Amino acid sequence: MGKLLIVGTIAFDAIETPFGKTDKILGGAATFIALAAARFEIDSAIVSIVGDDFPTKYLDLLRAQNISTEGVEIVQGGKTFFWKGKYHNDLNSRDTLVTELNVLADFKPVVPPSHKSPDVVMLGNLHPQIQLDVIDQLQKRPRLLVLDTMNYWMNHTWDKLMEVIERIDVITINDEEARQLTQEYSLVKAASKIQQMGPEYVVIKKGEHGALLFHKHHIFFAPALPLEEVFDPTGAGDTFAGGFVGHLTQTKNVSFNNLRNAVIHGANLASFCVEEFGADRLIKLTNEETEKRLRQFRELTQFDIEIG
Amino acid sequence: MGKLLIVGTIAFDAIETPFGKTDKILGGAATFIALAAARFEIDSAIVSIVGDDFPTKYLDLLRAQNISTEGVEIVQGGKTFFWKGKYHNDLNSRDTLVTELNVLADFKPVVPPSHKSPDVVMLGNLHPQIQLDVIDQLQKRPRLLVLDTMNYWMNHTWDKLMEVIERIDVITINDEEARQLTQEYSLVKAASKIQQMGPEYVVIKKGEHGALLFHKHHIFFAPALPLEEVFDPTGAGDTFAGGFVGHLTQTKNVSFNNLRNAVIHGANLASFCVEEFGADRLIKLTNEETEKRLRQFRELTQFDIEIG
Repeated sequence: MGKLLIVGTIAFDAIETPFGKTDKILGGAATFIALAAARFEIDSAIVSIVGDDFPTKYLDLLRAQNISTEGVEIVQGGKTFFWKGKYHNDLNSRDTLVTELNVLADFKPVVPPSHKSPDVVMLGNLHPQIQLDVIDQLQKRPRLLVLDTMNYWMNHTWDKLMEVIERIDVITINDEEARQLTQEYSLVKAASKIQQMGPEYVVIKKGEHGALLFHKHHIFFAPALPLEEVFDPTGAGDTFAGGFVGHLTQTKNVSFNNLRNAVIHGANLASFCVEEFGADRLIKLTNEETEKRLRQFRELTQFDIEIG
Repeated sequence: MGKLLIVGTIAFDAIETPFGKTDKILGGAATFIALAAARFEIDSAIVSIVGDDFPTKYLDLLRAQNISTEGVEIVQGGKTFFWKGKYHNDLNSRDTLVTELNVLADFKPVVPPSHKSPDVVMLGNLHPQIQLDVIDQLQKRPRLLVLDTMNYWMNHTWDKLMEVIERIDVITINDEEARQLTQEYSLVKAASKIQQMGPEYVVIKKGEHGALLFHKHHIFFAPALPLEEVFDPTGAGDTFAGGFVGHLTQTKNVSFNNLRNAVIHGANLASFCVEEFGADRLIKLTNEETEKRLRQFRELTQFDIEIG
C-alpha cells in the first residue's frame, strides 16, 4: 500500500461566514489534507504538533480514518495553534481576526520511523524551515514531493522558501501567490517561471474558478464544481491537495496523465469540503457520494468534437 | 446550408490597452459575431446600421467571409456608432470614454427576405425593442433564438427586456449580469431563476474564467484557454457567441450535447479574438489554427478516471 507523509498544522479554527459561526472546531492544513487523502487506500501519517488542550476525540477521529498520528507531538501544558477568521459576503475574501501560534512557535518536526520512506510527501503550508527539516529526515527521495505555501513566507522567509522550492516536484499555490512569486500577471508565464525555480509541475488554485496544472508546455484544467451554495471555504485548498496526493499515493503513478486525474480528485473532494463548516462534510463522506460527483465532473467537462 | 440571422451593432471602436492604442477600427457586436460564425459552413446575414462614413472596405471584408450585408442599412449623411474605451492593467475591467450612438439612435431593423426563415437567430446586445422587432419579422420560429444583453438594459428597459427573455431559447450574459438579473449570488441559483423566466438554456460568461452552460439540472463548463498574454479583450464575448451559433447553425442540431460542443467552439474562437486588437486576429484565422487549438481544449479538459 502506498505511503503518504503529511506535514502541516493541526489547529483549532473559529469561523464566521454569512451563514453562521463556530466556536473552536477541528482545523489545520494537515487535518484537511489527511482527511481528503483518507478517501484513498493508502497508509498515511501526519507530522504535526498540538497542545494538551487538544481533544483526544479529534485524534481518534483521524485514526479512525486510518491516519497515523504517531508523528503528532502533544505538548503537555501547551496550547494548540488557533486561527479565527471571518469571511466577507461573497466568501471569496476573509479577515483573519486571531492567529495564536502557541505550540507551533517551537515546532521541531519528527518523522515517525514507519514513514521515513514514503511514496509521496505533502508539505503543508508552514515555515519553510520546518518543510526542509522534514525532507532532510527522509531515508530516500520519494516518488513525489509536493509543496503548499503562501504569500506570508514569500514576504518573510524568501531565501528559505527558495531552498524548499528547488527541492520539490510539485508546488500548489493560489493565483495571487503565483503572481507574487514571479512578478508575472499571466498565469501561463508565472507557471513557466516557477518551473524554472525547481518543480516540474505547478498547480495554481483559483478557488471557485478551479485549478490549473502546468507541466512543460502542457496545461490541464480542473473546474470547481458549480454549487448552489458555498457554506464555508475553510480548508478547501488543503482538501484539494489531499485529494491530489491521496490519488497519487494510491496509484503510485506520477505521470502527467495521472496527475491530471489527481487534480480532478482534488477538485472533487474540495467541492464537498465547502458544503459545511470546517471538516464536517469530509468526515462523513461516503464513496457513493464521491463517485456520483466524479460523474458530475465528467458531465461538466467532457465533450465530443471530432477534430479533422 | 444552415441559415443564421444576426442583429447587432456595427461600430467604430477606439481601444486603449496597456499594450497600445488604436484609432477608429472595425468593431461592434454583429461584426464579431458574424466573423466568428463565418468559421463554419453557413449562410449568414447581418441586420444592422452604419453611416456613410463607414468604409466600403469593411463591408467588403464581411462579404468576403460569406456574410450577407443586405440587411445593413447605410444612412446617407449619418455617422456610424462609435465606442471608445480604455482597459485597466489587468484587462479585466475597462472605462468607457466615449459612446456616440449616432445612426443607432433611430435604428429600425429590417430583416432581408433571404433570411426571414433562418435556422438560428443571434440577437446581439442592443435595445430590447430592436430585438423584438427582429423576432416579429420572422416568417417562422427558428430552431434556436439566442439572446445577448447587458446590465444597461436591465437598468433602463426592464419590462421590454423581460418580453424578449420570455421568447428566446438561449441567453448569454456575464456573471455579474446574471446576478443582477436574478438577485442571486450563486450562479447555479441564478441560472435556475433565469430558466424560469423563459430560456431553456443559460450561458454565463466569466471572461478569463470560462463559460457555464446550464440546462435543467445539467451543467457544462468551457474553460478559457490559458494564454501567455491577453492583448485586447474587446469583442471576446461576441466572438464566443458567434462560435456558439455558428456551430449550431452548421450542424442544425440543438440538443444539449451539441450545445456543449458549441460552447467549446465559442471558447476556442474567443481565445483567438483577444490576441490582437479588435477583429484583426479573427479576420486572418485559418482552419488549421482553430483545429490545433481545439486539440488544446481537449488536452486541457479531458481526463480518464474510471468511476466504479
